[in-house]
Amino acid sequence: MSTPITVPVVLGARSYEILIGPGLLPEAGARIAALAPQARLAIVTDENVAALHLATLTASLDKAGLAHQTIVVKPGEASKSYATFAEVCDGLLATRVERGDFVIAFGGGVIGDLAGFAAAVIRRGMRFIQIPTSLLAQVDSSVGGKTGINSRHGKNLVGAFHQPSLVLADTSVLDTLSKREFRAGYAEVAKYGLINDAPFFLWLERNWRDVMAGGKAREEAIAVSCRSKAGIVARDETETGERALLNLGHTFGHALEALTGYNSKRLVHGEGVSIGMVLAHEFSARLGLCSQEMPSRVAGHLAEAGLPTRIDQVPGGVGTAAELMNAITQDKKVKRGKLTFILTRGLGESFIANDVDPAAVTGFLEEKLADAQKVGA
Amino acid sequence: MSTPITVPVVLGARSYEILIGPGLLPEAGARIAALAPQARLAIVTDENVAALHLATLTASLDKAGLAHQTIVVKPGEASKSYATFAEVCDGLLATRVERGDFVIAFGGGVIGDLAGFAAAVIRRGMRFIQIPTSLLAQVDSSVGGKTGINSRHGKNLVGAFHQPSLVLADTSVLDTLSKREFRAGYAEVAKYGLINDAPFFLWLERNWRDVMAGGKAREEAIAVSCRSKAGIVARDETETGERALLNLGHTFGHALEALTGYNSKRLVHGEGVSIGMVLAHEFSARLGLCSQEMPSRVAGHLAEAGLPTRIDQVPGGVGTAAELMNAITQDKKVKRGKLTFILTRGLGESFIANDVDPAAVTGFLEEKLADAQKVGA
Ligand SMILES: NC(=O)c1ccc[n+]([C@@H]2O[C@H](COP(=O)([O-])OP(=O)(O)OC[C@H]3O[C@@H](n4cnc5c(N)ncnc54)[C@H](O)[C@@H]3O)[C@@H](O)[C@H]2O)c1
Ligand SMILES: NC(=O)c1ccc[n+]([C@@H]2O[C@H](COP(=O)([O-])OP(=O)(O)OC[C@H]3O[C@@H](n4cnc5c(N)ncnc54)[C@H](O)[C@@H]3O)[C@@H](O)[C@H]2O)c1
Repeated sequence: MSTPITVPVVLGARSYEILIGPGLLPEAGARIAALAPQARLAIVTDENVAALHLATLTASLDKAGLAHQTIVVKPGEASKSYATFAEVCDGLLATRVERGDFVIAFGGGVIGDLAGFAAAVIRRGMRFIQIPTSLLAQVDSSVGGKTGINSRHGKNLVGAFHQPSLVLADTSVLDTLSKREFRAGYAEVAKYGLINDAPFFLWLERNWRDVMAGGKAREEAIAVSCRSKAGIVARDETETGERALLNLGHTFGHALEALTGYNSKRLVHGEGVSIGMVLAHEFSARLGLCSQEMPSRVAGHLAEAGLPTRIDQVPGGVGTAAELMNAITQDKKVKRGKLTFILTRGLGESFIANDVDPAAVTGFLEEKLADAQKVGA
Repeated sequence: MSTPITVPVVLGARSYEILIGPGLLPEAGARIAALAPQARLAIVTDENVAALHLATLTASLDKAGLAHQTIVVKPGEASKSYATFAEVCDGLLATRVERGDFVIAFGGGVIGDLAGFAAAVIRRGMRFIQIPTSLLAQVDSSVGGKTGINSRHGKNLVGAFHQPSLVLADTSVLDTLSKREFRAGYAEVAKYGLINDAPFFLWLERNWRDVMAGGKAREEAIAVSCRSKAGIVARDETETGERALLNLGHTFGHALEALTGYNSKRLVHGEGVSIGMVLAHEFSARLGLCSQEMPSRVAGHLAEAGLPTRIDQVPGGVGTAAELMNAITQDKKVKRGKLTFILTRGLGESFIANDVDPAAVTGFLEEKLADAQKVGA
């Protein structure tokens, strides 16, 4: 077997390991059998991942003598719906997996969130394993136990905290990911630098091409990201404090996703986060919290890496400031009318601002949209 | 304010109180305000309960200055569906309740399970209050934190453990309950005697008429039931052991419910439990575990109280032994092909039998169905 990088997630009885490295998928069977030799497995995946990688996974499970069945859903954010949730739950129950068996979430963040939520509630809680196949899922969504689906009122509004028993991040599986999806995941990698790790951001500014190309730099970037997230999650599992830092760029980003109808042709999650992080830095600069140069440094790196950084780059536009504000206030991070944003005091100096005045955000967004109009004209 | 009987449910940080007594509903506002003066409330109820008691509840909340909105669903087991779950979640999100606010489950066990599950997953977990209005809900479903909905594969297969913050059991609200529904709840009261409290069963044999009539005997029976359940739940919150005793009669009962299509005209939950408890005692006697007289003593009391005790009493029949077994093996209490049943060694001496041979159950059911045919003919 290979010797992957191991990142522990320390959560008492719910602790688990993230394994990171090339060639982990063909070893999945052996590694899962080591964890639970008798378990039966129900794989949840999407059509894209199934076409490219399912045969490798099932061959590996067969070799280890593990019984398995597979449920395949349509790819894309639209599958994080009540309807697909019901379909996956009924599909899992039809496989007759029992409480000690495992659900395997095999795909990007959509599959991880959807299958993880189903695992959380089938028979009031089944064990599950994350085998993330997108960069975004490897560095973010597969770690930390947040699972859920979307409501028409907003993203991830229905869900559970449910920790996996194991995360297998095969970095070579990312080779089949489209450039656009890889870049979207890269936005979340850069996020860890911007949250609290300036040296990592500086390293990314120098090494991002190697991260995209694959090999050691990619593994290293994924491991740093997972370690950062694992640390934050271990200190604040259910987001009563520090964990909110992981939402840097997400309040704006989720609003953009909502107003583009979660249509991945127009915007994918990581692109929303990229634009959202730039907006968070611009808003921080506008409030005088960080230097006026910060936003363009952040935007410069993300743009160089091929990510959108401005609202006007969203094809088809995103509506009015009022519509954005409506989406923002329905997002999770709202308390008694005051808004919570992740803002920054400098590179890698993000903090939780609990008392943001909605009027200030509205004014800022109106200005941004006016700018966008000019660029668009 | 009145001085209700108080039963504590001791679960560390998730501890709460069950208050039992007449006239609690008009005091709900004051009691909730004492717990959380600023909370906003989203009431989930069904059409029947709304017509009879919603005005009392909302008047009480208004008096206490608590903001509230209401979501009303259709009465009956059919509301424990994916579709109604989605409707309730979206309805709750539309009220813009936030993570510190409360969902109030105001109704019978269906509402408690449905609204409790929605509360468990909205924004990954909201607080909630149970105001149970059926006898079954007051003595059983509102206590202990099991919430969930049904799948076509079986009852309660999708759900969460989510403890309420308070349970208000107004015993006078039960006066509007139909005789049939009251009796159905009485089956769960008798269950506590049969599990581990023979003196309570003897007391019920003497006092069941007073329990039905109302007043002190009713309050006492509800309090004994809640204390019994609270004790078991405190010792085994997530059903890794002892808590399974509460399923006495439920494995058979759930199968009967499934095969009557959860159609309350044919069978309601408590009626299924009544027949199921008699079957559990008959099966125990057949295995030589308890005396041959036990089943008829149990059946005698339940029948006297107006409950069905035989399969042939289910209008329309319940299918074949094979169909019943299929429903039983899809129920939750299955491990590696062996069946788990709650069996008994005598009055109030129930125990968890983990290794029941499916063939023995099939044989027993075939015999029962043949008997039923004879009675039916
Ligand atoms: N739970 C969390 O903590 C958390 C954190 C961040 C994001 N998320 C969620 O993650 C989701 C976004 O994740 P995502 O970007 O992975 O989306 P995704 O799952 O839709 O994957 C993106 C696309 O890439 C395809 N794909 C995945 N792996 C592939 C591979 N190896 N080769 C080829 N194609 C592949 C998928 O089929 C899909 O079309 C959002 O719903 C977001 O809300 C959750
Ligand atoms: N969560 C648990 O631990 C647990 C335990 C036992 C049962 N249950 C569940 O509880 C459900 C059965 O509960 P139930 O019997 O209360 O069913 P229910 O909620 O359907 O109520 C029965 C009927 O009585 C009506 N009703 C309720 N209160 C009334 C009142 N005060 N006056 C007039 N009508 C009233 C309802 O509208 C309904 O028509 C089942 O789904 C069962 O699975 C859950």
